[in-house]
Parts: sequence; C-alpha cells; structure tokens
Amino acid sequence: MTKPRRGVRFPGRGVNGHVSSDGRRSSFSEISEDGSGSPVKTKSSPQLDDINEKAPERPQMSDYEKKKANFLTRTFWTFVMIGGFFAALFSGHIYIIACITAVQIVSFKEVIAIASVPSRARQLRPTKSLNWYWLATTMYFLYGETVIYYFKHIVLVDKVLLPLATHHRFISFVLYVIGFVFFVANLKAGHLKFQFTNFAWTHMALYLIVVQAHFVMNNVFEGMIWFFLPAALVITNDIFAYICGITFGRTQLIKLSPKKTVEGFIGAWIMTIIWAVFLTNVLMRSKYFICPVNDLGASIFTGLECDPNPVFLPHTYTLPYLFFLPEGTSFSFTTEPMQFHAIVLATFASLIAPFGGFFASGLKRTFKIKDFGDSIPGHGGMTDRMDCQFIMGFFAFIYYQTFIAQHKVNVGNVMELAITGLAPEEQIELIKGVSRYLVNQGVWGPEVSICLSQFYKMFANQLSSGS
Amino acid sequence: MTKPRRGVRFPGRGVNGHVSSDGRRSSFSEISEDGSGSPVKTKSSPQLDDINEKAPERPQMSDYEKKKANFLTRTFWTFVMIGGFFAALFSGHIYIIACITAVQIVSFKEVIAIASVPSRARQLRPTKSLNWYWLATTMYFLYGETVIYYFKHIVLVDKVLLPLATHHRFISFVLYVIGFVFFVANLKAGHLKFQFTNFAWTHMALYLIVVQAHFVMNNVFEGMIWFFLPAALVITNDIFAYICGITFGRTQLIKLSPKKTVEGFIGAWIMTIIWAVFLTNVLMRSKYFICPVNDLGASIFTGLECDPNPVFLPHTYTLPYLFFLPEGTSFSFTTEPMQFHAIVLATFASLIAPFGGFFASGLKRTFKIKDFGDSIPGHGGMTDRMDCQFIMGFFAFIYYQTFIAQHKVNVGNVMELAITGLAPEEQIELIKGVSRYLVNQGVWGPEVSICLSQFYKMFANQLSSGS
Repeated sequence: MTKPRRGVRFPGRGVNGHVSSDGRRSSFSEISEDGSGSPVKTKSSPQLDDINEKAPERPQMSDYEKKKANFLTRTFWTFVMIGGFFAALFSGHIYIIACITAVQIVSFKEVIAIASVPSRARQLRPTKSLNWYWLATTMYFLYGETVIYYFKHIVLVDKVLLPLATHHRFISFVLYVIGFVFFVANLKAGHLKFQFTNFAWTHMALYLIVVQAHFVMNNVFEGMIWFFLPAALVITNDIFAYICGITFGRTQLIKLSPKKTVEGFIGAWIMTIIWAVFLTNVLMRSKYFICPVNDLGASIFTGLECDPNPVFLPHTYTLPYLFFLPEGTSFSFTTEPMQFHAIVLATFASLIAPFGGFFASGLKRTFKIKDFGDSIPGHGGMTDRMDCQFIMGFFAFIYYQTFIAQHKVNVGNVMELAITGLAPEEQIELIKGVSRYLVNQGVWGPEVSICLSQFYKMFANQLSSGS
Repeated sequence: MTKPRRGVRFPGRGVNGHVSSDGRRSSFSEISEDGSGSPVKTKSSPQLDDINEKAPERPQMSDYEKKKANFLTRTFWTFVMIGGFFAALFSGHIYIIACITAVQIVSFKEVIAIASVPSRARQLRPTKSLNWYWLATTMYFLYGETVIYYFKHIVLVDKVLLPLATHHRFISFVLYVIGFVFFVANLKAGHLKFQFTNFAWTHMALYLIVVQAHFVMNNVFEGMIWFFLPAALVITNDIFAYICGITFGRTQLIKLSPKKTVEGFIGAWIMTIIWAVFLTNVLMRSKYFICPVNDLGASIFTGLECDPNPVFLPHTYTLPYLFFLPEGTSFSFTTEPMQFHAIVLATFASLIAPFGGFFASGLKRTFKIKDFGDSIPGHGGMTDRMDCQFIMGFFAFIYYQTFIAQHKVNVGNVMELAITGLAPEEQIELIKGVSRYLVNQGVWGPEVSICLSQFYKMFANQLSSGS
C-alpha cells in the first residue's frame, strides 16, 4: 500500500503529482473539502517538486495503480470507520462519548499543530505543554458541568465529589488562571509573536472544537437520536451534494471552492429533507434512540425505557381552510411533531453546516496545507472529516434545549436545591414535611409512621442539642 | 497643550524623543505598564526618527517644558476620570453600567485596531463591519442573559419580552451563525491570512474584554461593593507597587518589564491587604454598597434597603487553643466575615491581576506599539488603564458566586417542588439522599444513623410492596 503522506509527493512529471494527490479524494465526499486541493499548487510549482523530491525509493507507479491503491485504502478505512461508529452506537452511550472525546482530542491536536508549522524550528517547550494544559482545563470544566447536570443525585450526596461540584466553576477558573500566569511568566522577547499567536490559536481551537464537540456529548445524554440524526444528516448531505453536483452542477457556489455548485447545494437540500423524514421515521421506533440516558449500562440489546417526549407521539394537524375549496372541506394529517424538527435539522445540515467545511477549507488554504493531518489513512485528518459536524452538533444542542427539552422537575435538581440552598435545620424540616406528606397520602403505611414518630423525636433532640 | 500622539514624536536629538515619551508615563502608575516603553526603541532608532520626522511646526520645547505639559495633561485627565467615576458610582447602578459598557466598547475598538495595523492598506469593508457585528451579537447575548437572570419577574410576565427570553440562546446563536456564514462567504483568496487572523483576534478580544467586562456588570447588580472593592484594590495596588518599588526595589520580577521588582510586588501585597481591610470597613457601613440592586432608581442619596448578606454581619471567632498557653486561655475576636473575603480579593489584586497587565505589555511589544490607543489624553488607550481590571472583575464574579451568593431558596419552595413535581418513589429517594447527606456532613450523629438504617429497610419494603 503506498500511502502518500502530507508534504511528500510521488516523483514523476509534475502533473502526475497532482493527479495523485487529487486521486486521494476521489470518493463520494470530495465535494466537502475539495477547495483545499488547489493550495498544493500554490505552495510549490511542479518543477520545484521535482527538485525537492528525495530520491525515489520504490519503482515508479502508473497513475492507474496509484489511484487504485488510494481508492482501496480509502474505501477500507471508510468501512472501518462506519463499522466502528455503529458498533459504538449500539454498544451504549458511554462508548459514543468515548468516540466523541477521541475525535475532540485528535482534532484539537491537528488544529494546534498547523499553527505551529511555520515555527516548528523554535521548540518552546512550555508553550507546547501549555496547549495540552488548556485542553485539560477546558475538558475538566466542561465534563464537570455535564456530570453535575446529569448526575446530580449521585454527585451531591458523595462526600468526596460534593465540594468539587459546589466549587466547580471556581476550581476551573483557578486552573485556568494558573495556566494564564504560567503563560505570561514564560513570555520571552523575540518569541512574543509566536507565543501570542499560539495563545490566540489554541483558544480558537478550544472554542471551535472542544466546546462545540462537548455540546454533542450533551446531545447523546438527551437521547441517541439527538446525536445520531444531525451527524447522519451532515454526512448524507455531503453525498447528495456530490451526486447532485456531478449530475446537474453548472453554477459555481463559492469563490474558494471551485467544485461546489449551486445545483448540488440546492439538490442536496431537497434530498436531505426527504431522507431526514424517512430516517426519523425509522429511528423513532426505537426507545434506545429517543429516550434520554437514565441507565448508563444500556445498549441496543437491553434497550431503554421512558415516557417518550411528546415530539415523538403522533399528532393530528388540520390544515387551515383554503378559500378556493368548497365550504366544509378540510384536510388533516397525522404525524409526529419530530418530523418538523427533522426538517429543520436537515435544512441546517444542508444550508449552514457546509459553511463549517468552507471555513476549514479556507483555513487549510491559509496555511497552505492539503489536509489537517493524517489520522485516518486515505482520508486525511480527523478535522477534515468532522469540519461540518461541530457546528451541526452545536445547533442541535441549542435547538433541542430551546424547542424540545422538557424542563421536568427531577430528584436530582430538587436535591441540589435542598443541599446547596438550605441550612441543615431546613433540610430536616424538608424531610419531615415530605415524610408527613407520604404518610398522609397513604404511600407510607402505619408501621413507617411509628418509626417516623421516633425519628421526629430524634430530629428534635438533634436540633436542640446541635444548635 | 502639546499632546504627543502615537507614532508622532517631537523633533530634536533622538534621546529627547525618548525622554518625552517616557515623560508621559511619569506619574504614579508608571509601574503598571512601563515594560512597554522599550518597544518604541526597538521600532526605530533615534537616528531614523530624525530622518522620518516631519519639519517642526512649533518652536522646539525644552525637556522640562515637555515634561511639565505632559504631567499637567495627565494629572488633569486623572482627576476628570476619578471625578466622573465617583459621580457615576454615587448616581446609581445604571450609570456605572453605562460606564462599564463604554469602557468595554472603547477597549474592544482599541484591541481589534492593533491587529489590523499591519494590514491597514487592505481595506476589507465586510471584515471591518463584521467586527462590530460580532460585538453587537456578543453584547446582545450577554446583556440578555443578565436581564433575564436579574429581572425574571418582569421579563417572564411581559408578552413581548417572554418569547425573546425563552428563546434567547437560540436567537443569539442564529445571530452568530449569520455572522459566521457572512464571514465564510466573504473569504477572498489572497486575503485569507488577514481574514482568519482578524477572525481569531476578534474572538480573543470578545473573550478577553467583552465577556470579562460583562461579569463586572453582574458584580454591580450583586451590590456596588462587589464592583467597587476589586476595582479599587487593583488601582491602589498599582500605586503601592510603584511606591514600594522605588523605595526598596532591587530584584527584577519579570523579564518583559525591567522596572518591576520583587520588592514592589511583595510590598504592595502587604499594603493592599491593610488597605482592603480599612476600605471594606468603611464601605460596609453603607447599605448602598452592600445591598443587591432591587431598585434601579437608587442613588447614594436615596440609598438601598435589604437584609444584608451574612458576610457583612459581625461574627465572633475563637482561636484554637494553643499548647504553650496556660489551660483555659482562649482568644476570640469579632469581625465581619467579609474582611476575610476582602483579604482574598486583595491577594488576587496584588499577585495575579498584575499578570493581566504583563499580558497587555507583551501584546503591545508584539505589535511594537507603545499604547493601545489615545482615548484618554495623557494616559494612552483605555485598555492600558484597564488591563488588570478585566481578570480581577472576572475573579470577583466567580468568587462571589461560589462563596458569597445566597441562592435564596426556602423550605417552602423546595417542598412545593418536591410534592408537586415528584412521584412518590422520587420523594422517597429525595428523603434518602438528603438524610445520607446530613449523616455525611456530621449533622446527624450515629444514633440517628442506626434508626436511619432501619428506616432504609422500610423504604425498601415499602417500595417493593408499593410498586
């Protein structure tokens, strides 16, 4: 297998070099970032390539052989990724979270690496370690927020975790400030430009990749469908854009990416909407997909149980009376409200998410690189595959929180209120009140009442001796 | 008045030019950013200055005259700023918010301007407008969050404001995405480096200035003291550092700023703590300072009324028994807990906040500028005066929220939530959770634990027979 690596091209006549590097991206998702193919040309002319090239170590391959080898590598790894993804998807939420974390870290690594390319010579150790420190701090902050939000009932009664939870933002801030002071204390005249660029760049990467990817994890907790549907729509939109583009494509869409056409863009939108309605219909049948995570051990085989959010329940819509129809005529149809939300998600995936990809293309051009890295053989970097996913996941998160989430009262948030907001005497009063309510309601039988009355006495003793 | 402007120095022998520009920063707060004085030297040698200088339009002034003129301008504007600040402080919270907003906008303008200095020639109109669009979007988001948080009772009953409030994050996201798409659509080959740098830079400015300054506004809402005390401590620490520095200063503190000394740094810390205790003692006497804003029309004359937060109420502390003292001896003293918090704030203002200033100095060196702008005659840019304030305000916010804020929750509303919002099993889980918490915290002794364990068994029986 001849796997071309970044910056190393095969010897041969200049043109071949380009065919080879184009061949790498000849499969379906070419559309998504092909605009970045050209920078290679601007970086060094074919003639220069020939001079810079090291002596060939292997016999020269024909165009056809190279294309075929590339195609095979790429296809093989496409299936590996798809297989791995579905395995994780079905094994449970924890596995998907692990996948997202891995994608997050690899993408972060790729993105911070490209900014330090021009300054690779200057090996500023502290700056490099600091990048990882920022990542660790940000992840500590974000994971902490998520864990506290979703696992309140566990975190708040644990003696070790409680102080970490109630001071979480303060601790994260202190960690951040330590990094900040370290950064400032290590500023060196002569390296300032590099250090500040690195600082700004790392913060951009944290914000564009780590923060956004994190919202995707929250989507997983809200129900697998809120993660899977947006991700699937972005990928399929890419494919539809390619198909529509090569079939009808005529008008160029954006200056930066010559191969993207208006016809591909619009055609993919229509196709993605149809596909979204179909896919949603299928996914809604599985409670594993529509239920929020109430059991982290769940997999597709054990399934999940919950009262589904009302958006997944069929609803009959009656169309408004249209003046040109005979009086009394009315049309109505029954569908799940989720279908309308799926159309909104599909529209975002088709019309807005690609701009995440264009943004990534522009970045690659700016730094005159072809791919963000070589994490996935035959595909380039992780970021190249994920560029449209981050903004899509963020949108899905905000959309879910605004229009779908039911802010139901649960034990976790009542307990949080009681533990963080009430004084011990008030907490005891709460226990007494709720217990009395349960006895009154007949939930607790008389035998509990007897213990309860003893208990009350102890409360009283405790209080009088305690305070 | 001869006011030296950025980049324009007075004619004369080279050395004079430097004396003149140093003279500008000869008053007390010299310490805070003097490290930035040197870049002027590196930018152009004195000899070059003489050549580049335009023909003198005014008669040459002596060193003494220039220094005097500068000193007068600077002193005059110092008093204007102090006067304006106290006028706003006493006129009411709205006026202080307006001041902070103005500082925020001016600083943002200065900071984004320095990044476009090297590319001033390329007048990319859309990019420039976009900077202001990002600012507007960020401010809409942040102000909205604050208004919704502090004025729930007004916002949530208003027919017009309600949908804006319930969809606030979604609307902000959509506004942001519009800007993002506009940015990507306007990417132009050949300008990419500039455009992406601008994007990253603007986001850094939004994060470092606008977001942090915004937390300062939240401090104002929590009570004037939470805004005034941190701000005052940073300013006075600057003065103390200067005084201690010129008096005892010997050891250099940081490579970037030759005039900052360890002695000044440590001396200022001690002085700032003493001053913080004194200032806090004075401020705590005024309810205008310690009460949260419950009336936006309040001023120092009308005052504010509230039950003060317990940190402002005297508390008697008994020191632990010391082994070398006769038995039975004990020391106790009475003070407000706020005094300890004031010491923490003073410590941050002395030891950490200056790093905000060092960061700004480093930035100015990187861009080879002396000041961020000329917004305040005789003082340089707004950012030069505020560089340590942003991180201090952010710290005060996080500190207040973590250790001081009382999340006004009472037994009544927690019980209401528990009884109306939870199912019986969940209520039992709540009782178990809170009980376990009380035992963990040591509020409930072991004798309660024994009954509790019996109790748990009954819970279990009850649950298994009940469900």
